Amino acid sequence: MSILIKNAYIVTMDKDGAGEIPNGFLLIENNLISKIGSIDSIGDISGDNSGDADSISADTVIDAGGAVLMPGLSNTHTHLGMTLLRGYADDMALQSWLETKIWPAEANLTAEDVYYGSLLGCLEMIRSGTTAFCDMYFFMDETAKAVDAAGIRGCLAYGMIEFGDLEKGNKEIAMNEKLVRDWQGKAGGRITTMYGPHAPNTCCQSFIKRVKEAAERDGVGVHIHVLETEAELNYMKENFDMCSVHHLDAVDFWNTSKVPILAAHSVWMSDGDIRLFAEKGVTVSHNPVSNMKLASGIAPIQKMLDAGVKVTLGTDGCASNNNLNMFEEMKTAALLQKVGTMDPTALPAKAVVEMATVNGGRVIDSMTGVLKAGNKADMILVDTSKANATPIFDVYSHLVYSAAASDVKTMIVDGKILMQDYNVLVMDEKEIMKKANECALSLAERAKAK
Amino acid sequence: MSILIKNAYIVTMDKDGAGEIPNGFLLIENNLISKIGSIDSIGDISGDNSGDADSISADTVIDAGGAVLMPGLSNTHTHLGMTLLRGYADDMALQSWLETKIWPAEANLTAEDVYYGSLLGCLEMIRSGTTAFCDMYFFMDETAKAVDAAGIRGCLAYGMIEFGDLEKGNKEIAMNEKLVRDWQGKAGGRITTMYGPHAPNTCCQSFIKRVKEAAERDGVGVHIHVLETEAELNYMKENFDMCSVHHLDAVDFWNTSKVPILAAHSVWMSDGDIRLFAEKGVTVSHNPVSNMKLASGIAPIQKMLDAGVKVTLGTDGCASNNNLNMFEEMKTAALLQKVGTMDPTALPAKAVVEMATVNGGRVIDSMTGVLKAGNKADMILVDTSKANATPIFDVYSHLVYSAAASDVKTMIVDGKILMQDYNVLVMDEKEIMKKANECALSLAERAKAK
Ligand SMILES: [Zn+2]
Ligand SMILES: [Zn+2]
Repeated sequence: MSILIKNAYIVTMDKDGAGEIPNGFLLIENNLISKIGSIDSIGDISGDNSGDADSISADTVIDAGGAVLMPGLSNTHTHLGMTLLRGYADDMALQSWLETKIWPAEANLTAEDVYYGSLLGCLEMIRSGTTAFCDMYFFMDETAKAVDAAGIRGCLAYGMIEFGDLEKGNKEIAMNEKLVRDWQGKAGGRITTMYGPHAPNTCCQSFIKRVKEAAERDGVGVHIHVLETEAELNYMKENFDMCSVHHLDAVDFWNTSKVPILAAHSVWMSDGDIRLFAEKGVTVSHNPVSNMKLASGIAPIQKMLDAGVKVTLGTDGCASNNNLNMFEEMKTAALLQKVGTMDPTALPAKAVVEMATVNGGRVIDSMTGVLKAGNKADMILVDTSKANATPIFDVYSHLVYSAAASDVKTMIVDGKILMQDYNVLVMDEKEIMKKANECALSLAERAKAK
Repeated sequence: MSILIKNAYIVTMDKDGAGEIPNGFLLIENNLISKIGSIDSIGDISGDNSGDADSISADTVIDAGGAVLMPGLSNTHTHLGMTLLRGYADDMALQSWLETKIWPAEANLTAEDVYYGSLLGCLEMIRSGTTAFCDMYFFMDETAKAVDAAGIRGCLAYGMIEFGDLEKGNKEIAMNEKLVRDWQGKAGGRITTMYGPHAPNTCCQSFIKRVKEAAERDGVGVHIHVLETEAELNYMKENFDMCSVHHLDAVDFWNTSKVPILAAHSVWMSDGDIRLFAEKGVTVSHNPVSNMKLASGIAPIQKMLDAGVKVTLGTDGCASNNNLNMFEEMKTAALLQKVGTMDPTALPAKAVVEMATVNGGRVIDSMTGVLKAGNKADMILVDTSKANATPIFDVYSHLVYSAAASDVKTMIVDGKILMQDYNVLVMDEKEIMKKANECALSLAERAKAK
């Protein structure tokens, strides 16, 4: 199977390679990119198997019509099962939001809820340009099944909370081990796994050390929440006389020589924490919309980039966003950094696109995030025939400040077309929305009853 | 001419009236809303003129299919001609952005540029749910012609800058007087006008006083930028020993007993300034995206609302946003206030929708912004059959945190359908985008050449 995309404005995100190719083509063979270049440089491109040596032929030809062809976006921190809780509770103080709304709802979540919530999340990601994501939640078999069915790429962790309880810790690790055993490398490699210790203030140091050892044994990464709130920072300082980062550094947790570490939020980072993350090679998932909505604070992202930290972007779950829109996340990231530092030059557009493509792709699958020959064929076409795309002076500015998720018209993941010209080809949208609505209503009823 | 909309989830924004009507209908006769209510309460609704007394009939029937029917959004501060400069310069320090990019481009703007920039802006507003806007720029005849053609509602001011130069001031006032004389109440009342003294640090006190007198004489409002940047505050304090608000209060500028005053940005407001705005009845246009992108600061909006100030929402021009997306502006307003005050309960969803509808509508036309019998028929249908609209627990949360501008499927302004089921009926989209692109490229060439 081969797919030829022609007449595209290609944003490769390949620093050492092509950069941008204004009048470009890209050839996909099976699940890999086999050729990429300028139409001007090779002359005729035809879609038929004409046998002409100068021409490129393919089974399927997509005329991009001048649309932007770019790597799919990677959402590196979410909780897909929570998509059912979109808009379930907002504008509340954190503790009462958790205690009166989120936790009671989660206590009533069933496997079916998480399955349809995850499918709904996959559908929203396909429609909004996200080809890959990192998740941490529970009933992860259901999320894995949804990812398998939807055709996108998912890096799944089971969210472990042990609160210093050894017996609970054993059970939690066993659950995550089972996820790794059952799903690592499945769906043709689209599904990968990580270990998911929830956070330094909900899991004790020795438990997190054990988790890290299990991850290194299994050769998979670790996904953890770190310093999301000032409350966490204060709790750690009161109990351990140091912040979360240094508390875990004491057991060499941040060492990434064997497996990657993905640190979500990382809002309350000191300059020393930032230096440590840079030295150790920790990947940060910045979640600006969630950090603003929950009033968690402003993560020092420009400082992190200056220090050499690998920064990626995530939406967090739909309970605190309330969508999975990575275009919105890109724009918000740039805006928040500028007002947070009172410097309009902070976090420029191209750096934001790098966070959402190259940097995010790398932590999920090293063969994604950049469009170049040999990489996996994960990409999107962004429609430029719209009022909000007129005029375009700079493509990165356009993608970050002007474009909308709804401009994504076509998505290919692992060489397979998931959406073409706004038609989702891999799932029955109406049926998924109907089922998800039913599950959400029933869940809300059960949560209220208790 | 009559239009019946049925099967809608109506968000009336009518505090004293219906609130929300889950299974609602709305009847439009000519340019006014004549009936609104619950289908359940009246029995049969048919689209044909059956003569059945129990039924409501109309020339045109729109089945909303469960979509949200709400007042159109009002964008109370923009510079529509600048839509041509979308993405022309970003991520720059304010002074070099103005001096090396924006001002040279504006010096080369022609009437034709502003016409197509304004048409493009109108098109983007129709597609994104904005039925009315307040503008301040130059070549305003061109913007007025575009508004006339597009069918939306525009409140237009000529942006006057005199820098204390009496002769220049005379010319500027004459330009604005001509705008008021030529366009006030035109296009069946869809076009209204204001006076637009640019800002307290670009126009002197006596000039602004003169402008206010002209506005009161003509019975139209005044639209001004106030305390957008800390630099303005510092400049005013150095030169006049007081802030912009008190400097203009000294000539009774903020008195709204005769005409409304619209103060854009109002970022660097002291508690005393806020009290003064509340007492005087000044309307603020909050522009969170622009304030973040230019690193201007965080306006104390929750404080203003608590004090009783009338707050509305605006996108500012496309050079500093870079779009006219009021859904994005609503979400950003809520998020920015929460992180700015470190309080997740600040600026809840419903208050944001009020800013974008009731409050914004009131300053443009007192018969808009609320769906009730007797008001003008300005409204939008927001599609809820999308992944990002599933599930919906609270309609205000949905509109602010989950919905996208691209969910707007139908728009009616002054009783006329401008867009139906995503088809813009009043303009040739491709032709406008083509012309706007040509103007933008040519403008950039001319600006570079000089
Ligand atoms: Zn999270
Ligand atoms: Zn402005």
